[in-house]
Amino acid sequence: MASTSHDRVVRPDNGQRWPLANALRALSMHAVQQANSGHPGAPMGMAEMAEALWHRHLKHNPAHPQWWDRDRFVLSNGHASMLLYALLHLTGYALPMDELKRFRQRGSLTPGHPEVDHTPGVETTTGPLGQGLTNAVGMALAEKLLADEFNRPGHTVVDHRTWVFLGDGCLMEGISQEAISLAGAWQLGKLVALYDDNGISIDGAVTPWFADDTAGRFRACGWQVIGPVDGHDVDALDAAIHAAKAQNAQPTLIICRTTIGKGSPAREGTAKAHGEPLGEAEIAATQAALGWTAAPFEVPADLAAEWDARSRGADAEGAWRSRWAAYRKLFPAEAAALERRMAGTLPASFEADWLSTVAQVQQRAQTVASRKASQLAIAEAARRLPELLGGSADLTASNLTDWPGCGAVRGGAPGGRHLNYGVREFGMAAVMNGVALHGGFIPFGGTFMTFSDYSRNAIRMAALMNRRVIHVLTHDSIGLGEDGPTHQPVEHAASLRLIPNLDVWRPGDAAETFVAWGSALQQAHRPTALLLSRQNLPALTRTPEQTAAIHRGGYVLSERPQPLATLIATGSEVALALQAQALLDARGLPVRVVSMPSTTVFDRQDAAWRQSVLGRHGPRVAVEAGSSKLWAAYGCSAVLGLDRFGESAPGPALMQALGFTPEHLAALVAEEIGREPQIERSSN
Amino acid sequence: MASTSHDRVVRPDNGQRWPLANALRALSMHAVQQANSGHPGAPMGMAEMAEALWHRHLKHNPAHPQWWDRDRFVLSNGHASMLLYALLHLTGYALPMDELKRFRQRGSLTPGHPEVDHTPGVETTTGPLGQGLTNAVGMALAEKLLADEFNRPGHTVVDHRTWVFLGDGCLMEGISQEAISLAGAWQLGKLVALYDDNGISIDGAVTPWFADDTAGRFRACGWQVIGPVDGHDVDALDAAIHAAKAQNAQPTLIICRTTIGKGSPAREGTAKAHGEPLGEAEIAATQAALGWTAAPFEVPADLAAEWDARSRGADAEGAWRSRWAAYRKLFPAEAAALERRMAGTLPASFEADWLSTVAQVQQRAQTVASRKASQLAIAEAARRLPELLGGSADLTASNLTDWPGCGAVRGGAPGGRHLNYGVREFGMAAVMNGVALHGGFIPFGGTFMTFSDYSRNAIRMAALMNRRVIHVLTHDSIGLGEDGPTHQPVEHAASLRLIPNLDVWRPGDAAETFVAWGSALQQAHRPTALLLSRQNLPALTRTPEQTAAIHRGGYVLSERPQPLATLIATGSEVALALQAQALLDARGLPVRVVSMPSTTVFDRQDAAWRQSVLGRHGPRVAVEAGSSKLWAAYGCSAVLGLDRFGESAPGPALMQALGFTPEHLAALVAEEIGREPQIERSSN
Repeated sequence: MASTSHDRVVRPDNGQRWPLANALRALSMHAVQQANSGHPGAPMGMAEMAEALWHRHLKHNPAHPQWWDRDRFVLSNGHASMLLYALLHLTGYALPMDELKRFRQRGSLTPGHPEVDHTPGVETTTGPLGQGLTNAVGMALAEKLLADEFNRPGHTVVDHRTWVFLGDGCLMEGISQEAISLAGAWQLGKLVALYDDNGISIDGAVTPWFADDTAGRFRACGWQVIGPVDGHDVDALDAAIHAAKAQNAQPTLIICRTTIGKGSPAREGTAKAHGEPLGEAEIAATQAALGWTAAPFEVPADLAAEWDARSRGADAEGAWRSRWAAYRKLFPAEAAALERRMAGTLPASFEADWLSTVAQVQQRAQTVASRKASQLAIAEAARRLPELLGGSADLTASNLTDWPGCGAVRGGAPGGRHLNYGVREFGMAAVMNGVALHGGFIPFGGTFMTFSDYSRNAIRMAALMNRRVIHVLTHDSIGLGEDGPTHQPVEHAASLRLIPNLDVWRPGDAAETFVAWGSALQQAHRPTALLLSRQNLPALTRTPEQTAAIHRGGYVLSERPQPLATLIATGSEVALALQAQALLDARGLPVRVVSMPSTTVFDRQDAAWRQSVLGRHGPRVAVEAGSSKLWAAYGCSAVLGLDRFGESAPGPALMQALGFTPEHLAALVAEEIGREPQIERSSN
Repeated sequence: MASTSHDRVVRPDNGQRWPLANALRALSMHAVQQANSGHPGAPMGMAEMAEALWHRHLKHNPAHPQWWDRDRFVLSNGHASMLLYALLHLTGYALPMDELKRFRQRGSLTPGHPEVDHTPGVETTTGPLGQGLTNAVGMALAEKLLADEFNRPGHTVVDHRTWVFLGDGCLMEGISQEAISLAGAWQLGKLVALYDDNGISIDGAVTPWFADDTAGRFRACGWQVIGPVDGHDVDALDAAIHAAKAQNAQPTLIICRTTIGKGSPAREGTAKAHGEPLGEAEIAATQAALGWTAAPFEVPADLAAEWDARSRGADAEGAWRSRWAAYRKLFPAEAAALERRMAGTLPASFEADWLSTVAQVQQRAQTVASRKASQLAIAEAARRLPELLGGSADLTASNLTDWPGCGAVRGGAPGGRHLNYGVREFGMAAVMNGVALHGGFIPFGGTFMTFSDYSRNAIRMAALMNRRVIHVLTHDSIGLGEDGPTHQPVEHAASLRLIPNLDVWRPGDAAETFVAWGSALQQAHRPTALLLSRQNLPALTRTPEQTAAIHRGGYVLSERPQPLATLIATGSEVALALQAQALLDARGLPVRVVSMPSTTVFDRQDAAWRQSVLGRHGPRVAVEAGSSKLWAAYGCSAVLGLDRFGESAPGPALMQALGFTPEHLAALVAEEIGREPQIERSSN
């Protein structure tokens, strides 16, 4: 194998540790070139940062990426994906060179941006800037809470760090402020961020639009700031990382002064290095400048050997396994609990237990707001699931996300299972994603439903990453009343339902709320949004069969013989539909009422169920105090919905003024019955 | 009128200027009490801040709220709305006391949160935290750019300040970082923010979740920071405001240490003061403590007279009118241009001119990406509209938002019409809202369409406020290719279409892109989102009548005699639909192709047009590389769409793999033709 032999590498003789980093540069620039797409500048600029961390500090075992006491590494500037793929390949993860050659091709393990669960060793999906850093805050938080809960004197079984690489794009995004403010307040001392301070963003040299004193900003938020250090001096970076690790009271930012595209004579230090291949000629010039003579996608054997972290990784995990065995012997219950929680499985008894809880709730027939029913469900769940980690974006007493004995999570103090996220909806959502990615907890967080707009892309990311994160979105319609159109969701239920892999529930009473919570907790690989009312909702009467059918997302709540129409309702409008049904009964127009708390769950039911619920005869009419536009997909020919903004007024008055009355709904249904010829439907 | 006489007011005799502020306190607590809903704490805590600014500094004319050289005042913590309503009433705006008594009631001029265009003197709709501050940055930017452009030596006709009140909620929101970073970089020296630093948010005393050194953070972003000052000492506040006004090189933050609910013996300094009425007993106790003896909703005559700003306002505007008259005489063209721009009207020739431009584009038949066609349209528009103010969230060369000669806006230098917003999508959108609210410019800004998630609530706010803001959202489908699922919009087109009053265009070629831009520019009272392709799109052939029909949002692009089906397509899928049509022609299955660049515009057309376009016979099938779920509302029985996340792969390969091929589409249409009995449709 001459191509990987030592003698083909011309080493610089100035004592600098170039070669290890240059393997990252070479792989990155060649992979981008081969794909004719991608970002060479950031990987080349961060090569020494990567060498210093991954070769000298990172605790991981490439043979076992799921070892849960590993350090977490987050590439928040996810466009630098080739850096991460090169690191994973070189350190010994199951990412063969052939996959690097297939960078950005369909079905490869090397997509354009890193994707968790797709490539071994990738901890989170990044690309949308600022969120990786925020995920890392969630991971560090989870580590800290688990360490507090499970470590015992002399038995430290949870003890790992969270490392982040980030660029100025991440720091310009507002969510970064939410992240660093929370990390500071929570005193996440084992979180270390390395800032690729290259002074260049896509539009050019950043000072005209990014003039922040970043060190000052982080210090103002309670961070230790180290540097600026020379980001191409591995020993200086190594020393900075040592300093970061020397204290665990504050999160640390290491400012690394780097040159984007470092090594490329014509492109380094320019915005052009960011997002386009260097081109063959410039690659040749770069190789010449670096003294790199290996062929594309070949790494000299001695470099490959030095990068290979499998042996050190096995040792690190082995040492932990000994500690874990000792812990397990002394603390078997704790060990079993931790293993279960890290596996993300619920206690075996949970499902049956929850079914009987739902039955009790149905029997109790309480009139409560669904946000209050949600709080009752949380309390019930928390008794069984110590992994519940709640929170609210500064609306705890409105979202009702806390529960008896939950305790508040506080920086500098152990314990607590409820987080005050402050007014930071997006940060909350992305922190929850990080918690879920880390494992050991099921995170949920509350805000007003309208402000799901703020957190929307993090909700999407949870869906894309298949993570169990639960969004408690209260004040779910104009029914919230006086706060007015800025606070009243209109298009939000429909727009959340459009996000692939997100379950959306809008329960109609306490029993449906409990079922929604049960579903959210049991969906281990998808997020859920719970849309909950501010106002009270009457308990709905159900047979045991109907109660059992709630979990299908849609079911017939009130049947009629020979019905002339089907009336489909969600949430606070289910009671309205029943009132309209009674009015229509009196007019000799029998209609069935379907409760549809979750269209997304209903969509996954078999065709026979869907058909039986939606009805084969007569028109279908939907009612929901929100956008009408998705209901045609369920065969509805009319919708009592809301396709305009709300108004400030008491909730009941507003509902009335905007047409959400039994009389209006009954009239609408009667009109549809009169309009439609009685044809048989062949599909929904 | 004994109730408003001087002698009923017991004045504190310690020399403090309590009484003026106490009128705000009294009105606020009584209005909240009467509504049995609202937020007394912030108005009572900010009463002296309001007195210092509104009584001693604010340049405004209550009789003429539209005077465009007035200072702008933004209540970023919009839940303190009663403070603003009290100020507007007291200073003499057309907001009678009866409206304060109807606080938060339907149809009143005093909704729960301030709403622009609804209540005279309200400059922007606030409530969603952090956005008011960011709107203010946009207002201050607009003022600065207009001053640079129009003022002449000795003739200063544009010269006003932008003032913001904000609370810690605004500062916790990430968007505040985007706002303060931009304000610092742009050196908006006439922007002054007064921070209601009361240490309390809804969840309680803030330090466990908001431990930032706020002064340090603002200084790090280039702001002048004054204080903390005693927020209940009007003279101290007055001095701080004077200091803020003394320099125009940096924006200023005045930190005002206040007590939430100040004046209420039992509630002040507690979270309970924030969001619920004090109750009659506590109101009585508060009045006693303040020495306030007037009846509810009555203001002693001497206080009322001191608050009345109408005479000073008339003087201020009068002085400006003299300057304006002199300016107009010397610079008639500039004066006319500025008047036209502040009125928000386009040049009279614009519409006809644009029609002929569209005809030329149609004739030119260029194959270009719609993002490139958009850039050509921007250049054409900019030649006619000096009020165009473009920008991009650090993707200028991808979004193609710049144009020849636009120049970059830079802090410390005049000129420039293109803003580098940095990677700050939400900030960009809310700044644009502020620019549009100020007037004098038509703002547009670009980012990748997926990241409209980040800016979503600000897009919604533009729609709620009826403001002309144009979002250039490029890379509009999986067709963008290798960047993968984090960057590929799927649900976004549909979810944007759900926002009331937002126009959404997804043009299919250059001509449609020009029409979309023309529409966006001519819709003076609504925002527009332009969804644009990364990849090239072939020019579509049209008759002059078809070209003229584009502006209706949907039209028949390719008719067939006796068609068996209607195929509806948008954007990059229009060409695909035509290819499928050709395949179906060859199979003897004639289908019509409808191009539907804007469903939102199409929805506003008369029923006859909609019916004629959608077709009366045969099934309808839609094709769009995005969520399928809205198309049923147009009577489509099948949709070639995408209800899952994308993948990283070259765009054409991905389109093919996920089914966007002529063959697949033709097969789908043929299947629908085979399925459906040929019934006549009575509606869409």
